[in-house]
Amino acid sequence: MPSDLHSVGLSRRQADYGADISAMLLLRRCHSLTRLGHVGTQRYRAAPSLASRAVRLCSSSRDDQRSYQHANNGASWKHIVAGLLTGTGVVLTYGLHHHEVERADAGSSTTVESSRLPVFSHDEVTKHRSLEDGVWVTFKGGVYDITEFVAMHPGGNKILLAAGGALEPFWALYAVHDQDHVLEILSQYKVGELSPEDLKKQEDAKSLDPYSSDPERHPVLRVKCKKPFNAEPPPEILGDSYITPHVLFFKRNHLSVPQVDPASYRLNVEGFPGGALSLSLEDLKTRFPKHTIIATMQCAGNRRSEMNKVKRVNGLNWGITAIGNAKWSGVRLRDVLLAAGFGPEVAKWARHVHFEGLDKDVTGTAYGTSIPINKAISEEGDVLLAYEMNGEDIPSDHGFPVRVVVPGVVGARSVKWLGRIVISAEESSSHWQQHDYKGFSPGTDWKKVDPKSAPAIQELPVQSAITVPADGAVIDRSNETLTVKGYAWSGGGREVVRVDVSLDGGKTWQVAQLRSGDEGQPTEPSPPPGRAWAWKLWELTAPLPPEAEELEIICKAVDNSYNVQPDTIPPIWNLRGLLSNAWHRVKVKVTED
Amino acid sequence: MPSDLHSVGLSRRQADYGADISAMLLLRRCHSLTRLGHVGTQRYRAAPSLASRAVRLCSSSRDDQRSYQHANNGASWKHIVAGLLTGTGVVLTYGLHHHEVERADAGSSTTVESSRLPVFSHDEVTKHRSLEDGVWVTFKGGVYDITEFVAMHPGGNKILLAAGGALEPFWALYAVHDQDHVLEILSQYKVGELSPEDLKKQEDAKSLDPYSSDPERHPVLRVKCKKPFNAEPPPEILGDSYITPHVLFFKRNHLSVPQVDPASYRLNVEGFPGGALSLSLEDLKTRFPKHTIIATMQCAGNRRSEMNKVKRVNGLNWGITAIGNAKWSGVRLRDVLLAAGFGPEVAKWARHVHFEGLDKDVTGTAYGTSIPINKAISEEGDVLLAYEMNGEDIPSDHGFPVRVVVPGVVGARSVKWLGRIVISAEESSSHWQQHDYKGFSPGTDWKKVDPKSAPAIQELPVQSAITVPADGAVIDRSNETLTVKGYAWSGGGREVVRVDVSLDGGKTWQVAQLRSGDEGQPTEPSPPPGRAWAWKLWELTAPLPPEAEELEIICKAVDNSYNVQPDTIPPIWNLRGLLSNAWHRVKVKVTED
Repeated sequence: MPSDLHSVGLSRRQADYGADISAMLLLRRCHSLTRLGHVGTQRYRAAPSLASRAVRLCSSSRDDQRSYQHANNGASWKHIVAGLLTGTGVVLTYGLHHHEVERADAGSSTTVESSRLPVFSHDEVTKHRSLEDGVWVTFKGGVYDITEFVAMHPGGNKILLAAGGALEPFWALYAVHDQDHVLEILSQYKVGELSPEDLKKQEDAKSLDPYSSDPERHPVLRVKCKKPFNAEPPPEILGDSYITPHVLFFKRNHLSVPQVDPASYRLNVEGFPGGALSLSLEDLKTRFPKHTIIATMQCAGNRRSEMNKVKRVNGLNWGITAIGNAKWSGVRLRDVLLAAGFGPEVAKWARHVHFEGLDKDVTGTAYGTSIPINKAISEEGDVLLAYEMNGEDIPSDHGFPVRVVVPGVVGARSVKWLGRIVISAEESSSHWQQHDYKGFSPGTDWKKVDPKSAPAIQELPVQSAITVPADGAVIDRSNETLTVKGYAWSGGGREVVRVDVSLDGGKTWQVAQLRSGDEGQPTEPSPPPGRAWAWKLWELTAPLPPEAEELEIICKAVDNSYNVQPDTIPPIWNLRGLLSNAWHRVKVKVTED
Repeated sequence: MPSDLHSVGLSRRQADYGADISAMLLLRRCHSLTRLGHVGTQRYRAAPSLASRAVRLCSSSRDDQRSYQHANNGASWKHIVAGLLTGTGVVLTYGLHHHEVERADAGSSTTVESSRLPVFSHDEVTKHRSLEDGVWVTFKGGVYDITEFVAMHPGGNKILLAAGGALEPFWALYAVHDQDHVLEILSQYKVGELSPEDLKKQEDAKSLDPYSSDPERHPVLRVKCKKPFNAEPPPEILGDSYITPHVLFFKRNHLSVPQVDPASYRLNVEGFPGGALSLSLEDLKTRFPKHTIIATMQCAGNRRSEMNKVKRVNGLNWGITAIGNAKWSGVRLRDVLLAAGFGPEVAKWARHVHFEGLDKDVTGTAYGTSIPINKAISEEGDVLLAYEMNGEDIPSDHGFPVRVVVPGVVGARSVKWLGRIVISAEESSSHWQQHDYKGFSPGTDWKKVDPKSAPAIQELPVQSAITVPADGAVIDRSNETLTVKGYAWSGGGREVVRVDVSLDGGKTWQVAQLRSGDEGQPTEPSPPPGRAWAWKLWELTAPLPPEAEELEIICKAVDNSYNVQPDTIPPIWNLRGLLSNAWHRVKVKVTED
């Protein structure tokens, strides 16, 4: 447990109140933690002018973790923690990727002045999410009322997506904001500082709620379930960035987020004749080569809501964004298996590699699953035990300190908070391998379903969806052209080679432009055959059909095995609502100005 | 050239007429040829009681090859060769898999009595293909009028498929005929012997026609093009056998069939720093381990006729049977590449492996293509240089003496009559790699097509089709159940895990039974993951819907990447009519008795 972190000097009691924090002390402690490998600093490095006046407040101890739950409607907070102590020369840097707050020794000899602006709770901030109620945002501990600025925002109404929450993840996505004059504009709208008060409430509730130490999440996420936390980003944001920032990356937790002390973390690799191998985080980082891949991860339930419209299915009602693309770094599973004793003798009987997370249910059962040995051991399989996501430590919602990344395969096999690897002749016997995450015929109902009749989902089929325009959008006829955007991906390392787009419900088709990088940025190099783990973003700009009052826009992707998406949902409907990869359709209205 | 065979003693002139053949001499010569590796004897071994009184008449020399062309309507022969010399104690054994006839030295001292039954030409035999015209078949050189037997045939009307041609391939398929009492029944219907006369006509035409030395094919094949020869079997026969007999295996030739002398055959392996490797057939058979796989091969144009119905496409109008499943034996391409010098240095630059056939057009350009190096070199890729098909030497129509078998990949890459392998940093520049065998959007026409915009087809998408009942079949309502049969396969080694069948046009679905072997036979063992190269046969027996007057029967397959077939053809239509893998649909009528 978190004794190592406590030894750094941060007990909960000591940290409870800290209006008089020493900035120097905090900085020193942060650096201690950074050495433990838990503090990502990508943003820190990207904005040195901000970083130079920033203190990163951070903690990894379970006791010091704060839980934030975001209501299902995406508009109100149940438990808000500000806990941000500000003063002259002390600015809270962007720390949302950890969502953790550290408070210092109240007995410190150095004091920090409190802000002279009013202090607001997050509850208060989240009430301001519209032009009617005012549009408030937070940035580095400051609260800003940007209502007047909305009309002037070069990016238009998109700024409203950040209303009631933090700007930082949006600015990480839209790097154009990384300019001094943008900060100058923002500073004109400052109305206050965030309050630390909700923090106390949160701590009081903690003992009753296994989810109380779950990390904070950004309010822009569309929450499908709070406990365990499952949420996805708005489509128009997801499709704007080739690499999905972790804040916006869909969260799919099966249980509460375990608090893992990186110093005492151990990965156990078992099942080999020579006995188990126990690896610390340091071992992983120093004993094995670091390997980086860009890989898309998709939940088997992505687009389930479309199946639900056909006939009710069991499962979270995911939209089209339970998918994301990230840069993952870590060690190859292959290298760890070889170190543990994989060789010709083991190859004779080993058929599967099991993964177990540190997330456990009330009976002590960990989330677990397995993948076939050939994927695990192949040099071309690229299965990682990742400790970084997008150049930072893996965030807690995504598996800190180590998660599996099985590229080309359903997200359910990429076990987070990895605690145990077992090599075996058999598939995992876990619920998630044997009973869930399987596909069935549309004619199969709960009465006659036989889980043994279907294989566990591993590689996923070809997929694509339209992120812009949104279903129900209204387009002005004065526009001469219409731009349609989206993502496309296929499982098994199969590269998407074409996306067809129809503006007339599938009667005629045009070929979209594919991108493997952000607009105007150098594109990622072509992957070797069979190792296209990352999605493609695509875009089509076409003349607006002159007469139409309504357009049914459709996309469908083709991968390099020339597999295509099926036309419609009903024939692939299944009782769990998995593998929903029919053509994606949105309807838009065309109106006169 | 055929000098080695000529040295065995069989010149054309010597062989022209041979009413007085010595059975002993023929037997001896056949054995000589067998040692050259050209005479498959699977059938021979399977029916020793027949073999004991049989003489295999065979030849491999170009001059001794006979050409047989079968008219497009499948009912008449243009050039027929009988050339069968019979006599007491001399029975022509089943040699259709070579379609070659050898005649012996006319000066032989031993004579054979001519048959006392009338002699018929093949023209005459092929006129008898119906109950009205009489049903004639040939078997081991005899002509049989089985008109009266048709009504008594336990297999029903299926016997009519053999009408006008040889029984042998059907009996190879339906092994139940391998019984003495069946031969006794047949013998009652004998009406004559086959005539050698058309042989002369054929030889006279030979010098004018590059296709004149193409092998004989069975008349049951549905010919799509005579020159080059392209044909597919009737669906109801294809679906009856897990392993497709070579006679019934679809033929897809790009040029005429080259006559290759196995003794002088050389395979050149080029592009390596150490120079070229030249391998004889003997080298291949003795220097490398023999490896056997069961793999399905499918033409990229299979089911093109369904696309043609939507809008005209360019290409042969294939039905649903340009696909077959065979047992292939030979050496691994991997082993040959390693012997030629593949290693870490070559791996740095090598990206593709080119194959060139010995079939050449009038400009001397060979059929050629390439596959990615990772498929070629992977132990799990299972790419073979095959010299056997279904336990016999590769038949000439299928690439004698050596062909490539690239399992999981479009048939076009499995180059027949393999002459040259080149390792390269680039894809093959051949027409068939760069301009043909690519998929395009349904919106792409010949004016705007850019071949560079699409990758060469390698792995094929998931596929299935209904072989029974036939489209337009009539079903008696007194049947309480309906049985639907078909095949299902997917590219890239992805195993078919489910076939859904609908009897009501796709409204409801039932799950078919899958088979990896012949009915009542032991099933093939499950393949390792990613190496499911062979198709599955499937079958559904379901209650006949009580009210329906017409049924629209549909099948669709799911592979273990959970890729599915698209619902309809129009959205996957493409100008070349390739990759036609939408749901297969047949309509049947239900009538009162």
